[in-house]
Amino acid sequence: MFDIIILAIGKIREDYFAEAAGEYLKRLKPYARIEMVELEPAPFNSSNKEKAKRLEAEKILNYLEKYSDSQIFILHERGKSFDSQDFAKTLEGVNRRTIFVVGGSLGFDGSILGKNWPKLSLSPLTFPHEMARVVLLEQIYRAATIVKGKDYHY
Amino acid sequence: MFDIIILAIGKIREDYFAEAAGEYLKRLKPYARIEMVELEPAPFNSSNKEKAKRLEAEKILNYLEKYSDSQIFILHERGKSFDSQDFAKTLEGVNRRTIFVVGGSLGFDGSILGKNWPKLSLSPLTFPHEMARVVLLEQIYRAATIVKGKDYHY
Repeated sequence: MFDIIILAIGKIREDYFAEAAGEYLKRLKPYARIEMVELEPAPFNSSNKEKAKRLEAEKILNYLEKYSDSQIFILHERGKSFDSQDFAKTLEGVNRRTIFVVGGSLGFDGSILGKNWPKLSLSPLTFPHEMARVVLLEQIYRAATIVKGKDYHY
Repeated sequence: MFDIIILAIGKIREDYFAEAAGEYLKRLKPYARIEMVELEPAPFNSSNKEKAKRLEAEKILNYLEKYSDSQIFILHERGKSFDSQDFAKTLEGVNRRTIFVVGGSLGFDGSILGKNWPKLSLSPLTFPHEMARVVLLEQIYRAATIVKGKDYHY
């Protein structure tokens, strides 16, 4: 059974993406202990984006301190790309809690990107962070059905 | 102004993906003539998937006959990958109607894949075809804002 935390910045504001995320969280119940943790985003305007990114990074690092024994992945469009089968194998191979860190609308500060955590890419395309969470959840669900050998055709 | 048809198989069944698609179609109005054409999927069971795929391919080819002067792209997970800037440049460079063909839950028949049309990949990951349409629409919207030099931060 997967044991997963999705650590994200901010709530999903669009109802449709929030509902899609909720649907995949529900479908995942038989396969995973899974939790979406939404840290408060730092307020910003055009002149202090870098500072806001640093503040968000501090919150992320602070949260992760308690989970230094977990497998941490950073979601990043220029990270390692993989297909759904590879992703299922990767998830299956982790024997401890897995934490996926999804950035906010500002992206990640260098203090996160400079860490030694593997970076995974859902796509070379830039996604809104809310949509990225839906895509990630759908892939985790797909991975669960691949691992269980279940038919999931879409 | 973009002039785009998204040619897809079947309706979007999940309300949340249908709403997300509707939202991006609405946001695209100032930037594009864009239409989503949904062809009827062929009914299938486990024993006649190949036949259903062929029937869907015939419908797609039949529709496209009227648009032989358009730029046709096939969406396929093993197609050419690109980032959002490249995608915007590609769309901007097309001086005629652009048609994106998105497969149904069965994927594409060889009679489509064997054509000379360029294949584009939104991600090496396998997406549900309904989610693929949302991702495609979001990227078209992003491309429109990139071309217009508009700020669209997510």
